[in-house]
Amino acid sequence: MLGKTYDSQVCSIARALEIVGERWSLLVIRDALFAGVTRFSDFQHNLGIATNVLQSRLDSFVEAGLMERPGEPRQRDYVLTEMGRDLAPVLVALTEWGDRWAAPGEPPILYRHQGCPEPVHAVARCATHGDLAPADITVTIGPGMPADYLAGRRPRRDGAAQPS
Amino acid sequence: MLGKTYDSQVCSIARALEIVGERWSLLVIRDALFAGVTRFSDFQHNLGIATNVLQSRLDSFVEAGLMERPGEPRQRDYVLTEMGRDLAPVLVALTEWGDRWAAPGEPPILYRHQGCPEPVHAVARCATHGDLAPADITVTIGPGMPADYLAGRRPRRDGAAQPS
Repeated sequence: MLGKTYDSQVCSIARALEIVGERWSLLVIRDALFAGVTRFSDFQHNLGIATNVLQSRLDSFVEAGLMERPGEPRQRDYVLTEMGRDLAPVLVALTEWGDRWAAPGEPPILYRHQGCPEPVHAVARCATHGDLAPADITVTIGPGMPADYLAGRRPRRDGAAQPS
Repeated sequence: MLGKTYDSQVCSIARALEIVGERWSLLVIRDALFAGVTRFSDFQHNLGIATNVLQSRLDSFVEAGLMERPGEPRQRDYVLTEMGRDLAPVLVALTEWGDRWAAPGEPPILYRHQGCPEPVHAVARCATHGDLAPADITVTIGPGMPADYLAGRRPRRDGAAQPS
């Protein structure tokens, strides 16, 4: 891991970004997850980044448990663990946002359900009502929220979360 | 926007990260989206970051079209546009990954469907088969992929995408 930039934040987004929020991190994971890249030299070729930056990212992923290096001690492959593969919904959601709002032209890649012609979409979903628009999503305070942290947040919430 | 770090990448994730991939960016958007923050001073209070960094992020969001500053010229509020609100699925997915893999203890916040007791979950979904595990997701080449870019990627794909 690359430091505790977001230490002041009681937030699982902040915790996640401490592991995968550095420059290039999510593109390294993208190549591992969806292009089958495992070798240092292939990551480096695809990304064109400095080897010390790439090494730092891969080392941090191994340290965090997101990648592992199975087999021989001198074997150079980096393989995603379940923790790493579980980032797939994040990457699909980010791709769809990028396709819609940030990338010119048509999508360079499409996600598909393995062995099925249907596209894969990232959605925020309610078990009863199905896919939700962003305005339908609100936050409530979970059991892991310290009261004193919440009390210091703005705008003041009077103990209850505000809808977005 | 803060430069073209990922210019070499034909990838909507890369395009998205050029807009929201800087340090603190997604936490600023989190506060705007789920805590109703609109004022510079409230973002600064909650995040505790240097004012020049915060100003740079907010300026870049306005420039990218992700936030706007409606009303009077001297009005200081920053309000998410549809483009900004549309990041909700990305943040929900990142929160869930963080809850599961990166944050100790119980979740500090929970997403709920507005006016409904059901939790909200971020999922990658197939229209026919419903929620997918990461291993069920594969990529295919979309219409926006330049052939020469694909030919230079490793490992070699012989024109077809590899499953994850």
